[in-house]
Amino acid sequence: MKLVTFAQQGAVKVGAIRGEEVVDVTAVFPSMLALIENYVTGLPQISDRLAGATAVPLSAVQLLAPIPTPRRNVMCLGLNYAAHARESYAAKGQAASLPTTPIVFTKATTAVSGPYDPIPFDAAVSAEIDWEVELAVIIAKAGKNIPAAQAWAYVFGYMVLNDVSARDLQMRGKQYFKGKSLDGHCPTGPWIVSADELPNPHDLRITCRVNGVTKQDGRTSHMIFDIPTIIAYLSQGMTLLPGDIIATGTPEGVGFARTPPEFLRPGDVLESEIEGIGVLRNEVTAVSDLP
Amino acid sequence: MKLVTFAQQGAVKVGAIRGEEVVDVTAVFPSMLALIENYVTGLPQISDRLAGATAVPLSAVQLLAPIPTPRRNVMCLGLNYAAHARESYAAKGQAASLPTTPIVFTKATTAVSGPYDPIPFDAAVSAEIDWEVELAVIIAKAGKNIPAAQAWAYVFGYMVLNDVSARDLQMRGKQYFKGKSLDGHCPTGPWIVSADELPNPHDLRITCRVNGVTKQDGRTSHMIFDIPTIIAYLSQGMTLLPGDIIATGTPEGVGFARTPPEFLRPGDVLESEIEGIGVLRNEVTAVSDLP
Repeated sequence: MKLVTFAQQGAVKVGAIRGEEVVDVTAVFPSMLALIENYVTGLPQISDRLAGATAVPLSAVQLLAPIPTPRRNVMCLGLNYAAHARESYAAKGQAASLPTTPIVFTKATTAVSGPYDPIPFDAAVSAEIDWEVELAVIIAKAGKNIPAAQAWAYVFGYMVLNDVSARDLQMRGKQYFKGKSLDGHCPTGPWIVSADELPNPHDLRITCRVNGVTKQDGRTSHMIFDIPTIIAYLSQGMTLLPGDIIATGTPEGVGFARTPPEFLRPGDVLESEIEGIGVLRNEVTAVSDLP
Repeated sequence: MKLVTFAQQGAVKVGAIRGEEVVDVTAVFPSMLALIENYVTGLPQISDRLAGATAVPLSAVQLLAPIPTPRRNVMCLGLNYAAHARESYAAKGQAASLPTTPIVFTKATTAVSGPYDPIPFDAAVSAEIDWEVELAVIIAKAGKNIPAAQAWAYVFGYMVLNDVSARDLQMRGKQYFKGKSLDGHCPTGPWIVSADELPNPHDLRITCRVNGVTKQDGRTSHMIFDIPTIIAYLSQGMTLLPGDIIATGTPEGVGFARTPPEFLRPGDVLESEIEGIGVLRNEVTAVSDLP
């Protein structure tokens, strides 16, 4: 099932995709978080009503971030693809070493944006805006000290996420939070694909294009720490919550590691795609041109 | 004014302190976040009703974290006291350098706990639990690109916070999030002191004791980046929200930098105190002994 949060005539709604249409389920689940919290009965309930229900064309609504206001920061894996780890160290003139333990930082909730939202650009804040397409995992239910062998039971679904990064702020501060957390610098969606519909999230092509030119082209099979390992690690002594978003790292091909380095400019169109999920399309937009 | 969240007969309530009593204001402000969001009219309203209102003894209620469920992760400054920066580098055998830009990481919302709550200890997760007493700033209202000169207008109040840290996890992962985010590893309180009652938060004694022995004894005047600078920096391109919690860094005297290093063990009592605010008292407790 593909689940969306969307805006229609000024109201924020929750829906499920049927072909090129959206079936509104807001009356039952007022928010995506409410749906996730009741997924055991909720998903079959939506599935049952999908066939006969009235629907609106996808083209008539605006898709928002599937979880517009996460209940806490997005958790992100750093350097979780070997080739990306190598390019990152090389760009800094450092000897490459692969992480032996997951590297986790967070993005502020206010960074989260929708699949087709503009990416704000403010040269006074950062002139080094970079891309990182990632597979995001949505947690289904609360859990702590989850064994890797049981971790799949805690996955609600998946979405595409771009961990847009202000490299100057990120590197200057050493801890990544500030450079990863600018408003609108975390496009997500276009929907959450429920776990049952994506039986092997570790065998998907994952790509990122800038103005139609492919910059990243990897496979999720190349993660250093796989999803069960990440969930087991994160939940050690820390309770994961329903709706938690975990971004699982980016493959090689980011801008700052290129020769010469490349960064996004106003007018650039960033497309982030994962096989079996969908495509985000976000235009970098000067803050002075934003509504 | 001193504002609290407290439990009474199974219910979570909001109140204001009057002497050794609590005046319940839950009927007007159902949560501390609701109070903060309406602080312009809310604070005078509480002030007005304080004198004549009925009250319950503080000893008859259980104080909870002033903001029990923050709407996103706690933002924390790293190495923001020069002497602490020096001891940290020395302990790692590295040359000392003072940060030239604020270092910001986050603690998970699930780490936040109350002023007298136990600090969970699980040797299977970490055996290097350390202390960091900090002055926490609570943000009053939404703001972005806030000039330092206007930053004080965005401060709602202050509380004591201990940025309890699992050093093994923190250092292994390089990014601090995981080692800073274990459940119950962020005691806060005992109340929020509103900004008007603490006109100079940069001239306060800040101390931390373990089993009655003073381990940290600093002054908030020693911060490298002061509160207006922190707010200006954090809000660059990123919207701060009402109720956001910013921990402003810890003075020297943490456990891992001692010779030999010291860490907390079950049974240890951690007291975190800031002049003009109050004292947190948290006992380190084996997870097997927790209710």
